[in-house]
Amino acid sequence: MKFRNFKMVDYVVFGRGAFDQLDEILAPRRQGDAPMIFFIDHFFQGNEAFAKRIPLRGKDKIVYIDVTDEPKTKYVDKVRDDLKAEFGEVSGIIGIGGGSVMDMAKAVALMMKNPGSSADYQGWDLVKVAGVYKVGIPTISGTGAEVSRTCVLTGPTRKLGMNSDFTPFDQIVLDPELIKGVPVNQQFYTAMDCYIHCIESLQGTYLNAFSRSYGEEALRLCQEIFLHKEQWDDDADEKLMMASYAGGMSIAYSQVGVAHAVSYGLAYLLGTKHGIGNCIVFDKLEEFYPEGVKEFKEMVKKHNIDIPQGITKGLTDEQFNIMIDVSLGMAPLWENALGKDWKEQMTRERLRALYEQL
Amino acid sequence: MKFRNFKMVDYVVFGRGAFDQLDEILAPRRQGDAPMIFFIDHFFQGNEAFAKRIPLRGKDKIVYIDVTDEPKTKYVDKVRDDLKAEFGEVSGIIGIGGGSVMDMAKAVALMMKNPGSSADYQGWDLVKVAGVYKVGIPTISGTGAEVSRTCVLTGPTRKLGMNSDFTPFDQIVLDPELIKGVPVNQQFYTAMDCYIHCIESLQGTYLNAFSRSYGEEALRLCQEIFLHKEQWDDDADEKLMMASYAGGMSIAYSQVGVAHAVSYGLAYLLGTKHGIGNCIVFDKLEEFYPEGVKEFKEMVKKHNIDIPQGITKGLTDEQFNIMIDVSLGMAPLWENALGKDWKEQMTRERLRALYEQL
Repeated sequence: MKFRNFKMVDYVVFGRGAFDQLDEILAPRRQGDAPMIFFIDHFFQGNEAFAKRIPLRGKDKIVYIDVTDEPKTKYVDKVRDDLKAEFGEVSGIIGIGGGSVMDMAKAVALMMKNPGSSADYQGWDLVKVAGVYKVGIPTISGTGAEVSRTCVLTGPTRKLGMNSDFTPFDQIVLDPELIKGVPVNQQFYTAMDCYIHCIESLQGTYLNAFSRSYGEEALRLCQEIFLHKEQWDDDADEKLMMASYAGGMSIAYSQVGVAHAVSYGLAYLLGTKHGIGNCIVFDKLEEFYPEGVKEFKEMVKKHNIDIPQGITKGLTDEQFNIMIDVSLGMAPLWENALGKDWKEQMTRERLRALYEQL
Repeated sequence: MKFRNFKMVDYVVFGRGAFDQLDEILAPRRQGDAPMIFFIDHFFQGNEAFAKRIPLRGKDKIVYIDVTDEPKTKYVDKVRDDLKAEFGEVSGIIGIGGGSVMDMAKAVALMMKNPGSSADYQGWDLVKVAGVYKVGIPTISGTGAEVSRTCVLTGPTRKLGMNSDFTPFDQIVLDPELIKGVPVNQQFYTAMDCYIHCIESLQGTYLNAFSRSYGEEALRLCQEIFLHKEQWDDDADEKLMMASYAGGMSIAYSQVGVAHAVSYGLAYLLGTKHGIGNCIVFDKLEEFYPEGVKEFKEMVKKHNIDIPQGITKGLTDEQFNIMIDVSLGMAPLWENALGKDWKEQMTRERLRALYEQL
């Protein structure tokens, strides 16, 4: 038995208004006149008040990141090529947005120093050279991408992260003010990425005391925010930001389960985004996670959230088979959820029936 | 309002038996034939079975660290001078023990690259150059020293840490197997360093959601281990190790309070060690922390712990005044505990009366 030696984020600043310390934080990381590049969620495009808060200096540039689809390797490669063509070298990449923007920031920062296509590095420990300095600043919380050692990318042949010790951010800025006012449904789907992860990992067969401690804390925070609070307030933003952080840390020695395994199939075939996809799937998983699904349904009801239904209606056998193949390819997730004999439990027929319910 | 940009430990490995991965973890950090130096708590001196588990290579050396007294700057300087004289350069320092050994490892690692005496660096951000590679491996849990950005040293004029971004470990190895079998009283005193810290910080005026989350988690773990468990087991060791880690992380945006402020006086005058000193003081702090002290007394009773009494009996006025001066010098602790008008609340007379109860 060997334990993962978990690479942590180097610096964390947490506080309401901490975003205003960004200029000072970046100053010692600037290399000559090479610019800092700010990747900003396209949700903020046209928001002049927000753009003015970005501490631009010299040749620094804002690049709005299109997160209509989750990050693709060819998008990573193109942004990298554009930056190389325009500047040669950059001092760093600062990702400001949700999980997709943070994953783009990590991936492009790595690809500024690693040759070839990002698709070449999808997998475990394939990245051999540190990228440029990189900072993660969440504006929506739940994915845990701010502390993870991966950046999930859709490549020509698979959806898989660049998992490596070079992947975590050098710095994260956790400012609860930034997640204020996220649209309710969006916030819920993203937060449930954290909640569902906790249910899957705490009930899984892979787990130790480190991940249990972080997972239980993240779960409690989610329960407090979404079940026990009468209304959303600043404290809820702060706790949601910490839930995401703790949920991300709990990944170190745990694994997700059925909801993630099934939702990867949806993502691959239909492009269903991670947060909402997990919700669509988890909603039908009573038999695997009875208490978690019950509580999830209470949260959905309390917050008047719409969980899309019938999204697999009318798909062909071939399409169902594609989803089933992708999903059954996630062996560690199934093993974590169902144990070593998962293949006997989760037959193609059973999985097909599950997909048909979605 | 500015928030601290918190430097994290770079790598964490957690797991029962993870200590056996140490050789592999150190391998890429070895610089030519410069040795790794293992600082081991003198508690293990003569324990051949333990010594055999240290992955010595080439010129590597074990140095047993005398923790009869808490670390002194002159001891740090002497160990550094000896290592310089014997080896010139070393590849790294690995501290294996309790808080004192970990503080020694951090301090000596820094002083291998910083000129002069460690006393010159007692304070905040006085260390300007990174030290050598350093690893912390707790064999007793509670202090949080494994994740802190300080190493507390007693110098010629004060007891104060070398607080800097260079101070945290590059690597920590958290192996719950290593804390198995610590003598009951010692384990309790050290664990209470964590518990008391949590009570002080969660009830303090300095706190944000980051530190609250870690502090509440550490507190819950302590309560589970010391109040709700029927007997000590492997799970208790794992949870205590995580409580210490979470308690240490919660330091980022919080501050300790009355127990620490008063116990510093005892440490300075009488050399009372940190863990037991905090217990001696906290036991008498009902008026400041009514619920915490009540719970503490339940834990003391349940585990049949001896809290020394009457340790200030027979001290002279001059001696009481020394303790009072040291204690009142800890302004941030008092302000955290009592608010901005703490000086009006905590008069010399009131503090004297408190010391007389100990």
